[in-house]
Amino acid sequence: METVSENACFGGVQGVYRHASAATGCDMTFGLFLPAEAKDGPVPVLWYLSGLTCTHENAMVKAGAQGWAAEQGIALVFPDTSPRGEGVADHPDYDLGQGAGFYVNATQEPWSPHFRMWDYVAEELPALLAEHFAIDPERQAITGHSMGGHGALTLAMNLPGRYRSVSAFAPISNPTGSDWGRKQLSAYLGTDEAAWAKHDASLMMKQAGFDGPILIDTGTSDQFIDLLRPEALAAAIAERRQQATVRMQPGYDHSYFFVSSFMEDHVSFHADALYRD
Amino acid sequence: METVSENACFGGVQGVYRHASAATGCDMTFGLFLPAEAKDGPVPVLWYLSGLTCTHENAMVKAGAQGWAAEQGIALVFPDTSPRGEGVADHPDYDLGQGAGFYVNATQEPWSPHFRMWDYVAEELPALLAEHFAIDPERQAITGHSMGGHGALTLAMNLPGRYRSVSAFAPISNPTGSDWGRKQLSAYLGTDEAAWAKHDASLMMKQAGFDGPILIDTGTSDQFIDLLRPEALAAAIAERRQQATVRMQPGYDHSYFFVSSFMEDHVSFHADALYRD
Repeated sequence: METVSENACFGGVQGVYRHASAATGCDMTFGLFLPAEAKDGPVPVLWYLSGLTCTHENAMVKAGAQGWAAEQGIALVFPDTSPRGEGVADHPDYDLGQGAGFYVNATQEPWSPHFRMWDYVAEELPALLAEHFAIDPERQAITGHSMGGHGALTLAMNLPGRYRSVSAFAPISNPTGSDWGRKQLSAYLGTDEAAWAKHDASLMMKQAGFDGPILIDTGTSDQFIDLLRPEALAAAIAERRQQATVRMQPGYDHSYFFVSSFMEDHVSFHADALYRD
Repeated sequence: METVSENACFGGVQGVYRHASAATGCDMTFGLFLPAEAKDGPVPVLWYLSGLTCTHENAMVKAGAQGWAAEQGIALVFPDTSPRGEGVADHPDYDLGQGAGFYVNATQEPWSPHFRMWDYVAEELPALLAEHFAIDPERQAITGHSMGGHGALTLAMNLPGRYRSVSAFAPISNPTGSDWGRKQLSAYLGTDEAAWAKHDASLMMKQAGFDGPILIDTGTSDQFIDLLRPEALAAAIAERRQQATVRMQPGYDHSYFFVSSFMEDHVSFHADALYRD
């Protein structure tokens, strides 16, 4: 593993690291914030999954999460959103291919050799972090924005016991019913919609739910709200009687100005779960 | 004046605006954060001047200042660092020309027609803000990073009574004694060093000082620290018996990870001055 950069940040270290990934068959880059407490032993970790077009870097520099994580003594990990590189398939649209991995394991050509972001985020990267950094694998939580909110919610519901809490900013909430979803799921997984169900937060909420607290924020002025379909997930949560806080935030849009405005709430929410015995 | 964008942010609005500038003879773009309190009347304002290569946007998305400003009910203004456009002189080096205005009024060709950032920040933009936005011109403070820290300090000491407080992150502290300064001051102002003195914070500290509190942070691992020359300003402050807090922050570098780590302190510092009767 190669250290790309390390910067002092809120008493801890904001690092960027690169490694050869077996899951994706290419080099992968991720950001990791370690609070000062990590010098003395393993700390809890909050995963932040990013949205369409993002790399590991966007949230790392724009979401304003490190200060709150430092206050709580929590690590933050910022994975990339797809495999990348010259030998990796791509597509001219911003919402398919590189930068748009959708947190699935692709089964269809030309995507299947590299687009295995589910395995990367669920298996390979957690193992790598536990091996190389002072991260406590028993205390993990997950959040994300837009496509990353979709990833956070579907990972959390498909991996019971893995994450103590899950939250999301403006998540793609019902991809099987949206142009942000049907396009990608058919490209990566094929047209048999049975394979899509585990990758739809609203369907997973109906089928499985989540054994822990959930926090979801969406802006009422989100320019992509018709693609996000928050109403599907809100209804599924209510129908299931799932423990959750679902907030529609007046006037906020889809930008990082929205994400950063509510980051303190999300980090505090996860800290409550991560520090519960 | 044209509204480029407005995003809800921490209960207020992060706007970006463009206007034809008489001072620089070209269109100028700036960011302005207005807290919720601005809906009810004029609020205090903190200026943030950016460093080499930056536009109005860098600090606006990376410094993490809006949350603290919202908590204090303070507006933030993020000016650009130079005139820009096809008819504006430029230079291939990153540290001269567009993106490197150095907060002076150029007297030398080819810079003099447009590079009048002193007048823009000291006169034109404050008047524009007071006319169009709920900003209280009697309650202004100023900060900045690197070249912008230089701008903040020299403006504050040259305009007594204008700003109630001044702070800086890793300021260029002694440009007449540094390659970050001699190159730009000779290009913009000519080789007569008498014209440079008002644009050197350490020299201005010896000559004039500042009638208010000062806060300066510099990282001990700043990769540009030999160009910043914090020792010259620290000595001048001590010699003058100037009210000030000068901190060397262990392990921090020149990045926005450093700036954001101490932004809460700086906004709180300015709020104390801005809300003093």
